[in-house]
Amino acid sequence: MTLSIGIVGTGMMGRFHVERLASSVPNARVVAVSDVNVEGAKQVGERVGARAYSDGHELIGDDQVQAVLIASPGFTHEEFTLASLAADKPVLCEKPLAPTIDACLRVLEAEAAKPRRLVQVGFMRRYDSDFRALKATVDAGRVGRPLLLHCRHRNATVPPGFTTDMMITDSVVHDIDVTRWLLGQEIVAATVLKARPSSLAPEGLEDPQMVLLETAEGVLVDVESFVTCQYGYDIRYELVGESGTVALGEPPGVQVRAEGGYHGPIPADFRERFAAAYQSELEEWVSGVLDGRVVGPSAWDGYATQAVAEAGVESQTKGGRVTVELAERPSLYA
Amino acid sequence: MTLSIGIVGTGMMGRFHVERLASSVPNARVVAVSDVNVEGAKQVGERVGARAYSDGHELIGDDQVQAVLIASPGFTHEEFTLASLAADKPVLCEKPLAPTIDACLRVLEAEAAKPRRLVQVGFMRRYDSDFRALKATVDAGRVGRPLLLHCRHRNATVPPGFTTDMMITDSVVHDIDVTRWLLGQEIVAATVLKARPSSLAPEGLEDPQMVLLETAEGVLVDVESFVTCQYGYDIRYELVGESGTVALGEPPGVQVRAEGGYHGPIPADFRERFAAAYQSELEEWVSGVLDGRVVGPSAWDGYATQAVAEAGVESQTKGGRVTVELAERPSLYA
Amino acid sequence: MTLSIGIVGTGMMGRFHVERLASSVPNARVVAVSDVNVEGAKQVGERVGARAYSDGHELIGDDQVQAVLIASPGFTHEEFTLASLAADKPVLCEKPLAPTIDACLRVLEAEAAKPRRLVQVGFMRRYDSDFRALKATVDAGRVGRPLLLHCRHRNATVPPGFTTDMMITDSVVHDIDVTRWLLGQEIVAATVLKARPSSLAPEGLEDPQMVLLETAEGVLVDVESFVTCQYGYDIRYELVGESGTVALGEPPGVQVRAEGGYHGPIPADFRERFAAAYQSELEEWVSGVLDGRVVGPSAWDGYATQAVAEAGVESQTKGGRVTVELAERPSLYA
Amino acid sequence: MTLSIGIVGTGMMGRFHVERLASSVPNARVVAVSDVNVEGAKQVGERVGARAYSDGHELIGDDQVQAVLIASPGFTHEEFTLASLAADKPVLCEKPLAPTIDACLRVLEAEAAKPRRLVQVGFMRRYDSDFRALKATVDAGRVGRPLLLHCRHRNATVPPGFTTDMMITDSVVHDIDVTRWLLGQEIVAATVLKARPSSLAPEGLEDPQMVLLETAEGVLVDVESFVTCQYGYDIRYELVGESGTVALGEPPGVQVRAEGGYHGPIPADFRERFAAAYQSELEEWVSGVLDGRVVGPSAWDGYATQAVAEAGVESQTKGGRVTVELAERPSLYA
Repeated sequence: MTLSIGIVGTGMMGRFHVERLASSVPNARVVAVSDVNVEGAKQVGERVGARAYSDGHELIGDDQVQAVLIASPGFTHEEFTLASLAADKPVLCEKPLAPTIDACLRVLEAEAAKPRRLVQVGFMRRYDSDFRALKATVDAGRVGRPLLLHCRHRNATVPPGFTTDMMITDSVVHDIDVTRWLLGQEIVAATVLKARPSSLAPEGLEDPQMVLLETAEGVLVDVESFVTCQYGYDIRYELVGESGTVALGEPPGVQVRAEGGYHGPIPADFRERFAAAYQSELEEWVSGVLDGRVVGPSAWDGYATQAVAEAGVESQTKGGRVTVELAERPSLYA
Repeated sequence: MTLSIGIVGTGMMGRFHVERLASSVPNARVVAVSDVNVEGAKQVGERVGARAYSDGHELIGDDQVQAVLIASPGFTHEEFTLASLAADKPVLCEKPLAPTIDACLRVLEAEAAKPRRLVQVGFMRRYDSDFRALKATVDAGRVGRPLLLHCRHRNATVPPGFTTDMMITDSVVHDIDVTRWLLGQEIVAATVLKARPSSLAPEGLEDPQMVLLETAEGVLVDVESFVTCQYGYDIRYELVGESGTVALGEPPGVQVRAEGGYHGPIPADFRERFAAAYQSELEEWVSGVLDGRVVGPSAWDGYATQAVAEAGVESQTKGGRVTVELAERPSLYA
Repeated sequence: MTLSIGIVGTGMMGRFHVERLASSVPNARVVAVSDVNVEGAKQVGERVGARAYSDGHELIGDDQVQAVLIASPGFTHEEFTLASLAADKPVLCEKPLAPTIDACLRVLEAEAAKPRRLVQVGFMRRYDSDFRALKATVDAGRVGRPLLLHCRHRNATVPPGFTTDMMITDSVVHDIDVTRWLLGQEIVAATVLKARPSSLAPEGLEDPQMVLLETAEGVLVDVESFVTCQYGYDIRYELVGESGTVALGEPPGVQVRAEGGYHGPIPADFRERFAAAYQSELEEWVSGVLDGRVVGPSAWDGYATQAVAEAGVESQTKGGRVTVELAERPSLYA
Repeated sequence: MTLSIGIVGTGMMGRFHVERLASSVPNARVVAVSDVNVEGAKQVGERVGARAYSDGHELIGDDQVQAVLIASPGFTHEEFTLASLAADKPVLCEKPLAPTIDACLRVLEAEAAKPRRLVQVGFMRRYDSDFRALKATVDAGRVGRPLLLHCRHRNATVPPGFTTDMMITDSVVHDIDVTRWLLGQEIVAATVLKARPSSLAPEGLEDPQMVLLETAEGVLVDVESFVTCQYGYDIRYELVGESGTVALGEPPGVQVRAEGGYHGPIPADFRERFAAAYQSELEEWVSGVLDGRVVGPSAWDGYATQAVAEAGVESQTKGGRVTVELAERPSLYA
C-alpha cells in the first residue's frame, strides 16, 4: 500500500520533503506539487514524476492526492489546512499551524468538528532519538519530578529578512513545543529578556535573547535564543528534576586529536542536526495515515504553541511578563 | 520501481532483514523466504506476504525473485551464492562469504567470469556514519599517514556453542574488513595473543584475546576481542597518524546526573549499535541493484577477510605470527 | 621567611584552613586560634602548636600574629576585619566581607584610608584552574565579546537552619563575584525567579531558584541556585560570546564502563571540588603578604558582591527587578 | 621541622625540583646543589640560597644535607645512590635507579643490608590523582579481576640525541612501573613490535612502537610508545576487567565551541600533565622522611622496571618475546 502525497510549496523546505518522500520513505509517493512559482514547481515535479500546480487548492482537489504536506509560507497555512480538512484529507503542516492565534483557532474549530484528527504539525524534534530518550528518562522517573528546564537554541546565521520577532515565532516555537510535550503541561506565562546585542547580528536584529517560560505546574524554563552565534547549529537541553538531571548528549561524530588539542564537529544547520528526525517524522506520518491514524503533534499543539509565541513577542515588544490564556481544549484533543 | 527480494534463512539475522526490508526500506519487497525449518519460514513469510520454501535453491530459482539475501548458516553460503551467480541474480551474503578460503576462491572464480559484480558481503560497519567519518577524516589527511590502529570489539555475552575460533571468524572478521577498507591495503600477517581467560566466560572459551595485524605498508593493528565483557556492546577505534589521531565518538544518548555521578548508556548489542548501518546497507544495496550496480563490500573483500581470519585461527591454535598469502586479484575487483 | 597567622573561628571552615596552613602551605605557620567555644579552639590549637583565645580581638592583638584569617560567623566579620585594619595586619576574611551593605562600607572606608590594601575576601573560585582558564579564554578574545553567561550552582543538601535568603547570600555570592571578575564590570540589576519548590528540600526552603543578573554593559547572566539537588556538588558555567562559547570542563576522574553504561564521579561538596583552589588561595595570599602585597579579591569586591546579593534577596522577597546602586569606588581599588 | 635537601644535578629536571622544593613544598629547604657544570649549579644555588658543589659526593658528604635528590644523568645514579646509602641519607633518585640491571642489583644489595628503606625512585605517576583513582577503582573490585591493560604514551617531540632504545628506557619505563604497581604483580615477558616509522620522526628513530607485556598472572598489557606524535603529550589508560573497564579521564580544561566544532586542550608535555603529581611526590617524600619513613617506589621497583626495560630493548633489537627473570626479592621489600 502506497500513500500518494501532494506537496504545497516547493521552496527550501518543500524540496527537502519532496526529495526525502520520493527517495527514502517507504510506501510514499509524491504525485503532485504546487507553488506560486509554477516553474519551480514544475522542475521539482519532473524530477520525481509528479504533476505541478500553481495553486495549492487545485493540488488539494486532485483526486489522486490522498494526503497533503504544506510547506508554503506561514501566512498560507490556514487556508490550505482548512481546504485539506474540507476535502477530508490528512495534512502534515510545517510550523506554524497558522501565524495568528485566531487563524489557529479557526483550524482547530474546523478539525474539532471531525470524528477524528486529520492535521499534524511539523514539530520534528519529537522524532529525534535524543529528545525521545530525554522524555523517556523523565517519564521513567529517573531524575524525579521536573523543576527547571534549560534550553540552548543557536543558529550560526540567519537568512536576509529575519526579524527579531522571528527569533520566537520561527525558532523558539520548537522549544515551546518541546517544553509542552516533554513536561506534559501547558505554558502559562512568557517573559523575554534581551542581552546586549551581538555586533555580528544584522542591523536591527536584537540577538541574543533569553525567553523565560512558566508551566502550569510551576516548572521554570529558560531558552537562550541566539540566531547568529556564528559557530554552528547547537541545541542543548538540561532538565533538572528533584533528584537528578538529564541532558541531551554531546554532538556525535569522530574526535580528532591534533595541534595541541582535541576537536569534534558541531552540526552546521538544522537539516544536518535533525536529518534522522525528519526521516522518522515522515515515515511515521506515512505509515500512520496508511493505517488511518494521525498521532503526531496536533492542531492543539500548533495552537497552544502559537499562543505562547505571541505572548513572547508581546513581551519582546512591551517588556515584562505576559500571561497565556488558552481556549478550552476540544475533546478531540483530550 | 521495486526490487523483489528472496531471503534464504529465517533465523535471527534473516528475520531481522525481512522485517527491515518489508517495513522500512524504500522500493523493496520481500517475495520469498526459505529455511530448512519450513514452518519458521512460513510464519515469517505470512507476516510480509512472501511465499515460503524449505530449500534455498528453489527460492533462488523462483522467477519472481530478482535479488537474493543470504542469511542462512555460514556453511551454506558457498552453494547459495554460486546458485545466485548461476542464475545471474544479485546477492547480498551475510558474512562470511564462505567458511573456508577454498570455498571463497570458488565463489570468486565464478563471479570473476561475469561481466560485472553480483555479490556483496554483509560488512555493515562500512555503512555506519561514525566509521564513514573516520575514513573521511583519514582520507582527508587530517591526521597524516596512518601508522597504528587500535580496535576494541566487545560483546556482553555469547550464545551457547560459541567457540574460541569464532572470536575471530565471527567477531574480529568485522575489524579485519574495516582495517582493509579504512587503510586501503591488504593485511599480510596475524598474531593472536591470549590474556588470562575471564572466569565469567563459558568453560573452554579463551576470552579475551589480542589480535595483531600487519598491513602491506606496515601499519600495526591491535584488536581486542572480548566477547563476554558483561557490560554491553562496545566498539571503539583510534587511528594514529603521523600528526594526529582520530577516534570513533563516545556512545550517543542522554546523560543523567544522579547519585553522585554522571551516567550514560552503552548499546546492548550489535543490532542496537549498528541499526542505522544495517538500514543504510540495505537501502544502498536495493537502490544500487535497481540501478544495475553492486558497489558494496565485494567477494574479494569476503575472500581476503576470510584469509586473514584463517591466519588468525592458525595463530590461535599454534601460536606465533602467521603470514597471509592472497591469490591474484581478478580484474573485476581492480 | 615564614608568616605567622592567627585564625579567628575554629568551626568547619576555620579548622579546614588551620589544617591546610599547618600542613601544606609553604612558609606559613599557625600561631594562634580563637573561638567563642574556647575548648574547641584549644583542641585545634594543640594539634598545630598554636595558642588558643576565646576572643578574636585578643588574637588580633597578639604581637606574634602577623596576619589574620577570619573564619568566624558572618555577623562578626566587620568587627574583626576593622580590628585587623586598626592593627595594620593583613587579613583574609571568608565571605561575606560583612553581612550588610553598611557594614561593608564601614570596612571599605577604614581600608580606603590606608596607603595600601590589607583586606582580601575569600572568593576562592578565582584560584580554580578551570575558572582561570575560562577567564583567560575570554580575555584572549577566543569567543568574542561576552553576551550571556549561564551558571549552575548545585549543592547536594544543606545543613539545618539554611534559609531561602542564604541561597543567595551564602551560595550565589560566589557566582556574583565570578561574574564581576570574569567580565570585568559591575552588576546593575538582579531579578529572582522561583521554580516550583522541590519536595526534597526542607520545609520552608524555596529551592531551586533562578537569579538573573544584568551587568553594566548589558551582559545577561542566569544563575541556577539549587541547594538540595541530592546528587552532588555541581558547578557549571558557559559563557556565550559573539563568535563562540567557552565552558568549564566536565568533572575530572576516571570513567567506568559497567552494567550497561559509562559512569564517572561528581564531587560530593565544595571542599572536594575546590580543594586545589583553596590551596592556591592560601599559598598566594601567604606569599603575597610576605612580599608586602595583597592582590586577591578586595574589600571592594566584597562590598559590591554584598550589594548585589542584597538586591537579590529583595527581589526574592518582593519580586521584580531590583537595581543595584554602588558607592563611589575609592581610589585604593582603582 | 624542616628537611634540608641537597640536589645532585642542576639540568632541566634538577632545576624543576629545586624550584618546587624551594617555593612550594612545605617544610623543605634546598641547602646544596651540585653539577659538573659548577657555574650552572652556582646560578641555581644563588636563587634559593644554597651552596654549590661541582661534585655530588661532596654534596652528599655535607653535614647540613639531610636528604638527597638525584637528578643527574642516569649513568651517575648508581654511584650517588650508593654514596647516599653509605652516608645513611634518604635519597630520591630520578628514574632510572641505574642504567643496567647489574647496577640496580648493587644498589638493591646495599640497601637490603640496611634496617630500613632509604631509597625512593622517581616514578611520579603513582602520585597522580587519576592514576590513583584508577588503582582505587581496580582495588575496589569495581570492574572485576584485571585481564588486559591498554596504555597510550605519546610525546609531541623528542630532544636531539633521543635514540630508539630510549623509547623504552626513558619513556615506557613509566608504563612498566605503573603496570606493576596497578596490578600488584611482576612482568614476566616483553615483546616489542614496530609500526611503520613516522616520516616526522628524526632520522634513525623507529617511532612508534607497540610494547607488549605479560604479567605473572597472565594480564596482557599493550603500550603504544609514540614519542613524536606532534600534537601534544597524551597519556591514556584503560584497564579491562572481567565485568567492566576503567579508564583515565579525558583531558581537563575548558571547552570552546567555535568555528564549526568543539575544542579542548591537551597538555604540551609531561611537566604540564604531571605538575600536581610531582608536587605530591615531593610533599609526601619530604613529610615521610621527616617522619622517618620512605614509602614511595622502592629500589626493588627501580630494579624490576629496569629488568623489564632491558628485556624490551633486547626484543627491539633481536625481535621476538624476551622473558624477564628477576633476582630474589630481599625481605626489606616484602
